[in-house]
Amino acid sequence: MTTPATVTLYGDVYSGNCYKLILCCRALDLPFDWKRIDILRGQSRTAEFLHLNPNGRIPLLVTAQQQTLAESNAILHYLARGSALLPQDDWAHAQMLQWQFFEQYSHEPAIAVARYIQRYLGLPEAEKARHAACLPKGYAALDVMEQHLSTRDFFVAEHFSLADISLYAYTHVADEGGFSLADYPHIRAWLARVQAQPGHISMDQAAGLYEAV
Amino acid sequence: MTTPATVTLYGDVYSGNCYKLILCCRALDLPFDWKRIDILRGQSRTAEFLHLNPNGRIPLLVTAQQQTLAESNAILHYLARGSALLPQDDWAHAQMLQWQFFEQYSHEPAIAVARYIQRYLGLPEAEKARHAACLPKGYAALDVMEQHLSTRDFFVAEHFSLADISLYAYTHVADEGGFSLADYPHIRAWLARVQAQPGHISMDQAAGLYEAV
Ligand SMILES: N[C@@H](CCC(=O)N[C@@H](CS)C(=O)NCC(=O)O)C(=O)O
Ligand SMILES: N[C@@H](CCC(=O)N[C@@H](CS)C(=O)NCC(=O)O)C(=O)O
Repeated sequence: MTTPATVTLYGDVYSGNCYKLILCCRALDLPFDWKRIDILRGQSRTAEFLHLNPNGRIPLLVTAQQQTLAESNAILHYLARGSALLPQDDWAHAQMLQWQFFEQYSHEPAIAVARYIQRYLGLPEAEKARHAACLPKGYAALDVMEQHLSTRDFFVAEHFSLADISLYAYTHVADEGGFSLADYPHIRAWLARVQAQPGHISMDQAAGLYEAV
Repeated sequence: MTTPATVTLYGDVYSGNCYKLILCCRALDLPFDWKRIDILRGQSRTAEFLHLNPNGRIPLLVTAQQQTLAESNAILHYLARGSALLPQDDWAHAQMLQWQFFEQYSHEPAIAVARYIQRYLGLPEAEKARHAACLPKGYAALDVMEQHLSTRDFFVAEHFSLADISLYAYTHVADEGGFSLADYPHIRAWLARVQAQPGHISMDQAAGLYEAV
């Protein structure tokens, strides 16, 4: 018998925002139940799901007491409380938040959206302008990351932290959005360092483990 | 003689992301130096400023030791460390982060962008489609807030917290982006509760206090 999971995570392992949570739970060896939500089939906008998350988005954490928590990076903080993924020092903690807000504001809206249009929608004519607009914004975010990583191994305080997990999620599949990392050697070396963390699995492996029927 | 400020904040009081920091410092009675950066004159993209923030955005915090911290909501966490604006309970803390990430992902990119196009660019023909696209997204965010506030006075744990400061910044000037709060009575009552907090000042008052020549 395995320990009963205390939290249920609603998501889709191929969504970077959801995959972040799997990387965190596995790095910390936390048990969890996974419930697949297929956004392409509207499952994040059903009355039942909107009752859990009025913002209609995945991922979502639900506790055994039916308390809910949305926003991938907020969920990471809750899951990682008290662990080494969360620096205790106030300044390092603030730096980590800086990179997580950067991820949600400057990185994800360009790189995840370009990937969505290219991988999921198949880059239709009607979406080409929106996709093209994502490219310079995404490269600008990658430039900021490359410069930062040119002098360090991880984003904050020389340790693997939630900032690395948040930024890894869509950076490692940026090619699926039409981005090339050829000119980003420091980012590529950092991706490899993240992949070498204990418990790390790919999206495909996560699909096999958590979403197989 | 006044106590020397330990931090310098670079910003523009009429930018909601920057104004947040003023509300926080005043609520906590923290000293700070303010340096105005005029983004319309390109001052966030000079070589000198990019050296401080490679992401080229305000606000930015710089310590007496020349350490830098970007992203408004990360700066708020640093400024408010150890204070009542930051819930100590892990769950409440995570809820606060949830609302701050919601603000940066679902609220600001719609409401602040619509306001920028309308107030600063004067809603030119070429920007009308982008402005129109912001409206349903902004109203969807306001709907989520209205529903949440229908049963509570503040966003998290029944106390004024950073979540309220983050969401107040652009909600209270949503009309400048073309949004009407007429159908949002709970949001309007909450705006008044935020305005009643000790130290609260308007953007105009802040301009007079911190940016007057
Ligand atoms: N800021 C949110 C973003 C969540 C988000 O946009 N999720 C997407 C999938 S990656 C979604 O649920 N889309 C479906 C919908 O909006 O109905 C987070 O970090 O969790
Ligand atoms: N996510 C950032 C957003 C900062 C941001 O976009 N700032 C705008 C002003 S509100 C800016 O500096 N724009 C000028 C530029 O991009 O050059 C935060 O919360 O601080």
